[in-house]
Amino acid sequence: LRDAYHDDLNALTESMVEMTRLVSSAVARATTALLDADLELAEKVISSDAAVDAQYRNAEELAFDLLARQAPVAGDLRRIVASLRMVSDLERGGDLAVHIAEVARRRYPSSAVPPALRSTMLEMGQIGERIMTKAGSIIATSDLLLAEQIEQDDDVVDRLHRQLFHVLLEDDWDGSVEAAVDITLCSRFYERLADHAVSVARRVVYLVTGAYAAESVLSQ
Amino acid sequence: LRDAYHDDLNALTESMVEMTRLVSSAVARATTALLDADLELAEKVISSDAAVDAQYRNAEELAFDLLARQAPVAGDLRRIVASLRMVSDLERGGDLAVHIAEVARRRYPSSAVPPALRSTMLEMGQIGERIMTKAGSIIATSDLLLAEQIEQDDDVVDRLHRQLFHVLLEDDWDGSVEAAVDITLCSRFYERLADHAVSVARRVVYLVTGAYAAESVLSQ
Repeated sequence: LRDAYHDDLNALTESMVEMTRLVSSAVARATTALLDADLELAEKVISSDAAVDAQYRNAEELAFDLLARQAPVAGDLRRIVASLRMVSDLERGGDLAVHIAEVARRRYPSSAVPPALRSTMLEMGQIGERIMTKAGSIIATSDLLLAEQIEQDDDVVDRLHRQLFHVLLEDDWDGSVEAAVDITLCSRFYERLADHAVSVARRVVYLVTGAYAAESVLSQ
Repeated sequence: LRDAYHDDLNALTESMVEMTRLVSSAVARATTALLDADLELAEKVISSDAAVDAQYRNAEELAFDLLARQAPVAGDLRRIVASLRMVSDLERGGDLAVHIAEVARRRYPSSAVPPALRSTMLEMGQIGERIMTKAGSIIATSDLLLAEQIEQDDDVVDRLHRQLFHVLLEDDWDGSVEAAVDITLCSRFYERLADHAVSVARRVVYLVTGAYAAESVLSQ
């Protein structure tokens, strides 16, 4: 019995890691679709979200079965409840990648990102891809150094997010309102994506150390 | 023992209802702060979110204790796990009210909403207030008619959200880029708020009927 139990716990972990892999890839492709005005790639990101959702349901089911059949105590209970939270964060990350792809699709055949903002948006996309991969690594390894990196990556995303607003609101911004709307939305999507990775990381930190950065999670 | 158990389940429900009350009130006040450029009110919304967060932690603790000490089965387990999800939705609703208030604060002493868009934004705010109150009622009563109403309210918010974009992107929009950015953000915040109310309602529907609108929840 205990072996099947630990197999299920491991399967839950693997399912979450797989979700981070799918979301990370979706973010990378959504960013490329956005910058290159690649309609086909955008469509692919949108349709691929079904795989994230399927994995989400799989993980939920595993967690629920563990709770129902094993009545886990203390540490394991905490871990399973945390997993339920983490899979929500990851599922939402997939949605945000889809939202970015939808902006790309809406503006096709134009690119939603004016040349002056391409490098900033690219950096947000790259960090988004990386931060989700790191979320997967921290789930798999509980390596707390990764949590620090994720916090730092998130700080950079927040800074880029503010920078983009700054550019949009400067007097010499000569782009269209349409571009401003798209940039505002996409920047917000990347910023939220990073928040979800941070939320995952903090839950792992809590499981390992028992110290919960509740204030900072809640003030996101 | 069973009585204490049901007291705890009821306390969890009450805690969630109290969260909806706090969030509904925060949305109403954030909307007023936004439309009237009322800095004091905006600050109050921002500082009052601590009460939502405290209630969130209280509800989480109740749910976790119920899982840990009672090893609930079947229906109760499902209910407690759903509660963990719902309190996340409600806590996030509080954050979104804060984000609206922050836009009001950032633009003070100007109003972030140009006259042409005031009525649309007001309607989004009113539905936001109402939909959170309905979320509270459905948690308290499991009245499935409310779930239908919440879905309908959400449809209206989605329509208003699209309408606002439409206005912003029309050729005769003569507002500033700054206003376009603020409207984009606030409209998105209201739209997400309604999504969280829908998510709460669907979880209650699932608990009552066993039929889970998984696709629709996930595709939000």
